[in-house]
Amino acid sequence: MALSKIAKTAFSRSQGRIASENCVHRMGLLRRGLPASQPYHTLLPSMMASDGFSRIRRADVFGVESRGISHTPSREYPPTAQAIEDDLYVEADDGARLPGLEPTKPGEKPRVVVLGTGWAGCRFLKGLDAKLYDIVCISPRNHMVFTPLLASTCVGTLEFRSVAEPVGRIQSALAGAPDSYFYLANCTGIDTDKHEVHCESVPGTGLPYDPYRFKVAYDKLVIAAGADPLTFGIKGVREHAMFLREVHHAQEIRRKLLLNLMLSESPGISEEEKKRLLHCVVIGGGPTGVEFSGELSDFIMRDVRQRYSHVKDHIQVTLIEANEILSSFDIGLRQYATNHLTKSGVRLVRGVVKEVLPEKILLSDGSCVPYGLLVWSTGVGPSEFVKSLDLPKAPGGRIGVDEWLRVPSVEDVFALGDCAGFLEHTGKPVLPALAQVAEREGKYLANMFNEIGKQNGGKAHCAGNITMGDPFVYRHLGSMASVGRYKALVDLRQSKDAKGISMAGFISWFIWRSAYLTRVVSWRNRFYVAVNWATTLVFGRDNSRIG
Amino acid sequence: MALSKIAKTAFSRSQGRIASENCVHRMGLLRRGLPASQPYHTLLPSMMASDGFSRIRRADVFGVESRGISHTPSREYPPTAQAIEDDLYVEADDGARLPGLEPTKPGEKPRVVVLGTGWAGCRFLKGLDAKLYDIVCISPRNHMVFTPLLASTCVGTLEFRSVAEPVGRIQSALAGAPDSYFYLANCTGIDTDKHEVHCESVPGTGLPYDPYRFKVAYDKLVIAAGADPLTFGIKGVREHAMFLREVHHAQEIRRKLLLNLMLSESPGISEEEKKRLLHCVVIGGGPTGVEFSGELSDFIMRDVRQRYSHVKDHIQVTLIEANEILSSFDIGLRQYATNHLTKSGVRLVRGVVKEVLPEKILLSDGSCVPYGLLVWSTGVGPSEFVKSLDLPKAPGGRIGVDEWLRVPSVEDVFALGDCAGFLEHTGKPVLPALAQVAEREGKYLANMFNEIGKQNGGKAHCAGNITMGDPFVYRHLGSMASVGRYKALVDLRQSKDAKGISMAGFISWFIWRSAYLTRVVSWRNRFYVAVNWATTLVFGRDNSRIG
Repeated sequence: MALSKIAKTAFSRSQGRIASENCVHRMGLLRRGLPASQPYHTLLPSMMASDGFSRIRRADVFGVESRGISHTPSREYPPTAQAIEDDLYVEADDGARLPGLEPTKPGEKPRVVVLGTGWAGCRFLKGLDAKLYDIVCISPRNHMVFTPLLASTCVGTLEFRSVAEPVGRIQSALAGAPDSYFYLANCTGIDTDKHEVHCESVPGTGLPYDPYRFKVAYDKLVIAAGADPLTFGIKGVREHAMFLREVHHAQEIRRKLLLNLMLSESPGISEEEKKRLLHCVVIGGGPTGVEFSGELSDFIMRDVRQRYSHVKDHIQVTLIEANEILSSFDIGLRQYATNHLTKSGVRLVRGVVKEVLPEKILLSDGSCVPYGLLVWSTGVGPSEFVKSLDLPKAPGGRIGVDEWLRVPSVEDVFALGDCAGFLEHTGKPVLPALAQVAEREGKYLANMFNEIGKQNGGKAHCAGNITMGDPFVYRHLGSMASVGRYKALVDLRQSKDAKGISMAGFISWFIWRSAYLTRVVSWRNRFYVAVNWATTLVFGRDNSRIG
Repeated sequence: MALSKIAKTAFSRSQGRIASENCVHRMGLLRRGLPASQPYHTLLPSMMASDGFSRIRRADVFGVESRGISHTPSREYPPTAQAIEDDLYVEADDGARLPGLEPTKPGEKPRVVVLGTGWAGCRFLKGLDAKLYDIVCISPRNHMVFTPLLASTCVGTLEFRSVAEPVGRIQSALAGAPDSYFYLANCTGIDTDKHEVHCESVPGTGLPYDPYRFKVAYDKLVIAAGADPLTFGIKGVREHAMFLREVHHAQEIRRKLLLNLMLSESPGISEEEKKRLLHCVVIGGGPTGVEFSGELSDFIMRDVRQRYSHVKDHIQVTLIEANEILSSFDIGLRQYATNHLTKSGVRLVRGVVKEVLPEKILLSDGSCVPYGLLVWSTGVGPSEFVKSLDLPKAPGGRIGVDEWLRVPSVEDVFALGDCAGFLEHTGKPVLPALAQVAEREGKYLANMFNEIGKQNGGKAHCAGNITMGDPFVYRHLGSMASVGRYKALVDLRQSKDAKGISMAGFISWFIWRSAYLTRVVSWRNRFYVAVNWATTLVFGRDNSRIG
């Protein structure tokens, strides 16, 4: 077959690169496309050997061709070793592989490529002026998740759809403008010299090539690819624990919780097994862990007692944290949260997880905690994709940026949100991985891009002639966390050691709800969140286990 | 290991039964628990050899023990050949397997066991007086699906949760009464002599035994286990087509539809491939097929044109039907529906499917229809579970019942809904598989059970002394179907050849919506359906692809 010849040639031509490319491809797949249970850490050693996939230099010149979707690209792209082994590469009629969106021609609008649809990416998309730019967004999910309310969806307080905002509604150009697109795909690598990103459609598409790979040329690239949950290399976490970062995570948690509630009623289940099934363990006492624990205890207090009265005395929530819960909050608020959670029936345990087994957790003090549901929320760290990029790094392994969120040493690349951090030489600290930070960065960068666009600086290699405006400065507006049962914490201090207002209780809870309600992106979802809250108040939570 | 000895002994003791039990166990699993893509028909030959699992006679006597959940049942139940091979059976502390809910003792309330949570089962549950009976409901799903509105959820007109009603809200005794339970499980067989049903928990539970098997003794048994989609033995249907009977089916259809819309925008996708991806084919022109086609065309007209404008000209809906669409409706209404669908862009094709391949359908006239999404709705027939039962059968293979919905020749067993039909000797026709019929039967039987209960006839073997009341008579109230774009058909004739009111258009659509709104079981969902409709009108449909 002609194809395998092409592939083999490519393989021998690019042998030095195979290991890293292969690794990046697989990582791209694992990072987002596959369930969290997939063994993932096993790839780390090979990834560490990466020799800089992000800056592939190749002999063949990228010719400027017709714009838009090209059906007969004249280049072939060396498939990876993985690809040759795993995928059936059928040769297309014209012998082509890896079609692409070509570089923009003079006279055309510049193209901004955005990687990711989290807080940073979506806020950037929302602010970007589609009259100045063509926009291409690449992400494995077509919506933004309103993460602060995700914990509420696990127990049915809110519907899943109420916290998801389709990206086409955030930036309407993606839905309708002639040369703007949204691609449901993972980015697997960046060629900063050629100004192009390499993409791979999400798996299971049913397309003739699966995964379907393509390239997109950019004038400006915005990396807002987010971060991955931190597991600290603890054995068994990815296989057995659940995370709480995507809507499908919340759906899995919900299904598991309702399944365990129903199973525990089956005849002949021992008391011990019932207790295990109904033991919900949360690891990590940050805002996510605390809010989820609070929602769970609300669910138990109000709904489980009524609807699963046979097993209501066996259900228990335990929150395990190595240090203090809500460590970024004021000490008074921390104490309030501790008291409130304890009063609501959440058991707070100081402990360090050593290993996670299918039905129990081993702590470093030798004790063993059986569980039915395990939710892991110990913060985030750089994703495999970010690690694989040969770009300057900030402390902590994030992509390093300067005060204007530019990635130095490469042209026309910007990074923001959880995947980016200030470089040491800027003298600024790496900002925390908060929605608030990401959103502010997205807004700043969109304004900057609009300014640049108006100065005709949007095209590739134009940055030298442009005045950049003010650098990005982050001003913390405060933190909030709900702790369940109509109670929340509001900490309006600008930093951990600063002075300022901090409060807790029902009023705070009201502020918490109102603030989030106004932050929800669209009027549609704002309306739905309000309706969901009202119905939960009147009718209780829904407990149908669908899907 | 002691266990394998027990298992082998059991195996040799019950060798004559192994094939059928094994087959039934696997069927129970396949019938509901697994995705439609699972090859399922391959089991049919072995199933056909079933020698009447429903009436197992065994030497060991069922001792009357303590009531409720038994932790130390003194019997062991012969595991099947399948079980010995596939499952790791760890011996429980007391050497026991297959725990059970024991027969009720004199002086206790009689126990009604209900199989299934469809229209029939849920209406029965709703009407049954929990003061007279303990209720045990066994079903692989914990909610009822409001099937007439399911098609609307596929395109986002309604939320999934709005059409699902948790069974604990339909009959609150299941949620709270001390000796009433809901078990998330499949029934795998019925022992009518011993008055007990054999169950198996849904797969993937994480319990020490998976699947977890148990027995439940009944005083009265109500079989409302529903029917399975008819595929007429056509090759490839179960593997490649999607059905539309459960909420998770609607979720799959939605995910596939949105995936295909996004994929078709990827660079380098050929025109032909785009057309295939965006070709939605519906097989079957009954109310479900027509309503789904109408919803799809609404979605395309209103939402796809706005939000996927790059590919809006490639999307197409085709409805394939071997005879006439909506054949049970008045001829004028049929004509109206045909005209309206055609005007809305739905292509109506008269054809018979010969085979379904992964990306195309072969019709019997030799033509080939490429598709991206294939929805199969050609009516229902007896499920494998129903076929496996050694009970008298009505024409068409349903469980045969008399005028009081009793299964003759066995005591204390009743059947209703899509799985039951009048026996020939009753002189009554088998009723159509409609929600309306199932609901009416459920209501009738609940009233009858309440009467029997008041006469102290609820216990097993008491039927002889009871006056049964009036037999069940079905009076058809008429049919409705929406055809999209604020238009519907309402046919109030009592039968196909009778005279009566039939109408079509906007007023009918209004009647259709109002009628369904009042039929939705709970106020919560009634409220949600209304809110969903209103938001769709104002904001359009949601198109975030979650999960």
